[in-house]
Amino acid sequence: MSAVTDVDPEFRSEMTVELVRSAARDSDVLFAARVSTLGEQTLDDAGSDADLEKRDRGLINYLMRDRHGSPFEHNSMTFYVQAPIFVFREFMRHRIASYNEESGRYRELKPVFYVPDATRNLIQVGKPGAYDFLPGTPEQHAAVEQAVHEQSLAAYAAYQRMLEAGVAREVARIVLPLNLYSSMYVTMNARSLMNFLSLRTKHPEAAVPSFPQREIELVAEAMETHWATQMPHTHAAFTKNGRVAP
Amino acid sequence: MSAVTDVDPEFRSEMTVELVRSAARDSDVLFAARVSTLGEQTLDDAGSDADLEKRDRGLINYLMRDRHGSPFEHNSMTFYVQAPIFVFREFMRHRIASYNEESGRYRELKPVFYVPDATRNLIQVGKPGAYDFLPGTPEQHAAVEQAVHEQSLAAYAAYQRMLEAGVAREVARIVLPLNLYSSMYVTMNARSLMNFLSLRTKHPEAAVPSFPQREIELVAEAMETHWATQMPHTHAAFTKNGRVAP
Amino acid sequence: MSAVTDVDPEFRSEMTVELVRSAARDSDVLFAARVSTLGEQTLDDAGSDADLEKRDRGLINYLMRDRHGSPFEHNSMTFYVQAPIFVFREFMRHRIASYNEESGRYRELKPVFYVPDATRNLIQVGKPGAYDFLPGTPEQHAAVEQAVHEQSLAAYAAYQRMLEAGVAREVARIVLPLNLYSSMYVTMNARSLMNFLSLRTKHPEAAVPSFPQREIELVAEAMETHWATQMPHTHAAFTKNGRVAP
Amino acid sequence: MSAVTDVDPEFRSEMTVELVRSAARDSDVLFAARVSTLGEQTLDDAGSDADLEKRDRGLINYLMRDRHGSPFEHNSMTFYVQAPIFVFREFMRHRIASYNEESGRYRELKPVFYVPDATRNLIQVGKPGAYDFLPGTPEQHAAVEQAVHEQSLAAYAAYQRMLEAGVAREVARIVLPLNLYSSMYVTMNARSLMNFLSLRTKHPEAAVPSFPQREIELVAEAMETHWATQMPHTHAAFTKNGRVAP
Ligand SMILES: Cc1cc2nc3c(=O)[nH]c(=O)nc-3n(C[C@H](O)[C@H](O)[C@H](O)COP(=O)(O)OP(=O)(O)OC[C@H]3O[C@@H](n4cnc5c(N)ncnc54)[C@H](O)[C@@H]3O)c2cc1C
Ligand SMILES: Cc1cc2nc3c(=O)[nH]c(=O)nc-3n(C[C@H](O)[C@H](O)[C@H](O)COP(=O)(O)OP(=O)(O)OC[C@H]3O[C@@H](n4cnc5c(N)ncnc54)[C@H](O)[C@@H]3O)c2cc1C
Ligand SMILES: Cc1cc2nc3c(=O)[nH]c(=O)nc-3n(C[C@H](O)[C@H](O)[C@H](O)COP(=O)(O)OP(=O)(O)OC[C@H]3O[C@@H](n4cnc5c(N)ncnc54)[C@H](O)[C@@H]3O)c2cc1C
Ligand SMILES: Cc1cc2nc3c(=O)[nH]c(=O)nc-3n(C[C@H](O)[C@H](O)[C@H](O)COP(=O)(O)OP(=O)(O)OC[C@H]3O[C@@H](n4cnc5c(N)ncnc54)[C@H](O)[C@@H]3O)c2cc1C
Repeated sequence: MSAVTDVDPEFRSEMTVELVRSAARDSDVLFAARVSTLGEQTLDDAGSDADLEKRDRGLINYLMRDRHGSPFEHNSMTFYVQAPIFVFREFMRHRIASYNEESGRYRELKPVFYVPDATRNLIQVGKPGAYDFLPGTPEQHAAVEQAVHEQSLAAYAAYQRMLEAGVAREVARIVLPLNLYSSMYVTMNARSLMNFLSLRTKHPEAAVPSFPQREIELVAEAMETHWATQMPHTHAAFTKNGRVAP
Repeated sequence: MSAVTDVDPEFRSEMTVELVRSAARDSDVLFAARVSTLGEQTLDDAGSDADLEKRDRGLINYLMRDRHGSPFEHNSMTFYVQAPIFVFREFMRHRIASYNEESGRYRELKPVFYVPDATRNLIQVGKPGAYDFLPGTPEQHAAVEQAVHEQSLAAYAAYQRMLEAGVAREVARIVLPLNLYSSMYVTMNARSLMNFLSLRTKHPEAAVPSFPQREIELVAEAMETHWATQMPHTHAAFTKNGRVAP
Repeated sequence: MSAVTDVDPEFRSEMTVELVRSAARDSDVLFAARVSTLGEQTLDDAGSDADLEKRDRGLINYLMRDRHGSPFEHNSMTFYVQAPIFVFREFMRHRIASYNEESGRYRELKPVFYVPDATRNLIQVGKPGAYDFLPGTPEQHAAVEQAVHEQSLAAYAAYQRMLEAGVAREVARIVLPLNLYSSMYVTMNARSLMNFLSLRTKHPEAAVPSFPQREIELVAEAMETHWATQMPHTHAAFTKNGRVAP
Repeated sequence: MSAVTDVDPEFRSEMTVELVRSAARDSDVLFAARVSTLGEQTLDDAGSDADLEKRDRGLINYLMRDRHGSPFEHNSMTFYVQAPIFVFREFMRHRIASYNEESGRYRELKPVFYVPDATRNLIQVGKPGAYDFLPGTPEQHAAVEQAVHEQSLAAYAAYQRMLEAGVAREVARIVLPLNLYSSMYVTMNARSLMNFLSLRTKHPEAAVPSFPQREIELVAEAMETHWATQMPHTHAAFTKNGRVAP
């Protein structure tokens, strides 16, 4: 029944993040915020995408600084993400978001595996909750690379053998490792995205430090780059105000 | 400080519902659902807005019927709504949504009041939780109209007098009645909207009956009309499957 | 059909807040946080309510400071609240909570009305978003008191007349003013409550200022007092760390 | 730095589900529901745990049938769960819940692995979205058992070797398979739990069929058993009304 794949295993070190749908503009923040004071008079602006004036930017900055968060919710971005399962495990803990991920029950999973590249720090120092990471030695890099390759290939071969023996996909996949890539669509608004970014990036301007795993940070950074093109003034205000979600 | 308004009081019976931002298409449901079985192959479709084929409509119908709700979340609609406060009180109980409303603290409220028109049934019959409403007599309509007019005008005059006396808006407004119109922006995705519609409309094809107050139903009906133009096949599947949110 | 009430109208200035159900202890934070590092070994502690040691308090403080919020969610408090409708309107915007309120559709509402007392500041100064309030003059207090009494009584009389004429409760109630008391049960966890308190109290130790309406602040203060008895160390850490919800 | 474990690997087939904190009674539903019609008069009942009378059970049944869901939210249960990672991946997609899980970044993970036992059906038949599962042959069971044992042990040995070489835990763990056990605390209210049960159990009385993976169903069944002891009448009404969350 289940066609066994013939694809060559692939090892990757980067994350894929595409912005596939976006309805998110700085001006969306403005009409939402101004309804407080202007009521029905905001309606004309709600559709427009005028260049932001100084007082518009000032309003966004004020909302961010004083944590008036709701005006940042009337927008929506859908990202397509490819990342290893251990990243998705961390990602999907963010509940103010919508997810759809490929299924190990409904499809045969492709042999695409994450392997840390040479830039990935391997040595953990410091105390729990505030670990720092230093470069690994060449020997450590070699050890990781070898272990990752060997385990990934062996696990995938075992997966294939079980499928060939007629075992259900949902059972066979349990031997696959956490570095297997998966793919998903995730939809968030800017307020929720800022919460995600505040926790999943480590940034010099962050008022509250966070110590995310580097791989989810790669995803977060790519999302942030996309978001900054959609809502540049909101993004600037976020960073200016300590990268705390309002 | 607070400029006292000079606007003539207005009495209205209808609700205002405009769709000011929409990023919601039937095809958004499809790419999200198909990532389960197709993974990365869905990406090309994610941007397109092709006409739906029969099997696409079949997929939407299946998701609706078997309550796979998450694919209905990757979309977003922002409505601008004007309705009396007693409607907003009911509306804002729906938590899976984003709101911004004009503020009685930050602005002087306008004298626009709701009054039931001749089509509004006035007599409640039946048992709690399943009330039905029958037409009122001409005397009842006259009584309601008179009471609503008198109280609205008297309350607004009292509000104005307090403002003139230098009392803060947030204090003065406490005498205003529940039929005062307010305005807001509300953003929802289709899954949450379906939950709203299932509870706030009374519909012959509903598998589970609901008995909403007529005034919020007017708002819900207008929202449904807008939504049906954005996602016609999803809307059709919703009604076909008993109007239960997936 | 609808028995018309005979109760004398009542004017009140205070809020009622009772803690009717509570399953919230500082130790709940600890077992949840420690599962990260200790896994199955936390289970024994999960049921106990031991006195907190210094390192326990240190852990709570660290979680609060560095915004590890999820361990503050494994607890639950249900409050019974009586407050005027304009307070409930603000309260129910907090979506991470559960509500049940008495219904103006299902019952005849009692004539209990809020009137600001002599301690309620009446004059608003400063700029939008950061208003301050100063004491009103005796004349202003008299004006408010008179307006509130007159409008409340007149509105309630109109409500009663419509009920007597056989008009449905849900229609008749629309003339009632925003200072009518309502009652509800609200259930929150400590993380959500901290977000509520950070926005609905004005506090010298708050890192981010908020300018809530005094009446909802009265409710928030009473809730905070209850909460502090249940989770004293968590409460202390909240205030120590600038009263920002983690 | 990282003490390398000396524990013997363990293979298990069952899930651990303990109810560690519970504040959930049928009577909690009643006080919340009755505030609609009785307002302040419910307060006395809110604390009591009286035996439910017939009309109490009728009320619960009515709320369930007509999907008045909010009264089922004023309660809270915390479960401690041990299950393999592939189960947690499915579990944590349920967003209306609170989670804390042990961390592969902060601790060294224990070698405890899931292996399907003889009762686990292995052959998937039927069409996508409604798969059924039939018993595997002895050969298939042997194949699964062997693959699971081999891969688990090999992966764990590789993990240990990387740790010994000084590689950070968060990197070394990426080779571990999805059948590794993890542990967590999860807190839910009854409404959210019913949604979980409706999707994660397959039940003859379910009005809408669901086809969960057997392993998460084992967890769901254990949770349901605990819940039924806490809120027997609510549980009965849930099943009687087609196991659809209200
Ligand atoms: C048999 C089965 C197969 C599945 N297959 C897949 C799959 O292939 N791929 C995949 O990605 N997932 C899959 N899932 C997971 C599924 O899509 C849901 O994510 C999961 O079941 C959680 O359900 P939920 O959203 O109802 O629960 P919760 O997240 O706990 O939400 C509870 C309720 O709250 C409301 N809600 C919460 N947040 C939102 C929001 N942002 N917008 C609108 N409403 C909201 C909804 O009414 C929802 O029912 C599968 C689930 C099952 C049971
Ligand atoms: C002083 C003051 C003035 C205000 N003035 C106005 C006004 O003029 N007009 C007006 O409309 N409102 C006004 N509000 C209300 C305000 O906008 C919020 O709706 C309210 O304070 C609830 O806050 P919250 O969203 O943080 O809480 P909750 O709804 O309880 O949410 C808690 C947290 O969950 C997250 N969250 C929940 N849902 C979402 C979501 N859908 N998207 C992203 N994140 C989410 C956020 O992190 C949020 O902080 C005012 C509030 C205050 C305190
Ligand atoms: C006819 C009618 C009569 C009503 N009468 C009353 C009344 O007398 N008193 C009263 O107080 N209210 C009353 N309500 C309001 C009702 O109780 C709900 O608050 C409201 O309809 C919002 O519905 P919701 O919770 O499904 O929507 P949302 O808040 O938008 O939630 C959507 C879905 O998300 C899930 N969800 C979100 N948050 C939670 C959570 N914290 N826990 C569990 N699940 C969650 C649920 O699956 C829910 O269906 C009435 C509503 C109707 C339609
Ligand atoms: C560096 C780091 C280390 C971590 N380590 C661990 C670990 O060891 N173990 C572990 O289990 N997790 C760990 N996490 C995950 C963390 O506990 C959160 O689950 C995750 O970061 C999602 O954050 P959130 O709850 O703010 O986001 P969301 O779930 O998206 O919520 C957004 C906001 O909504 C509000 N909110 C939503 N739902 C609720 C609710 N039910 N109650 C109260 N408020 C709510 C909160 O204000 C929240 O900030 C770690 C995260 C980071 C960044």
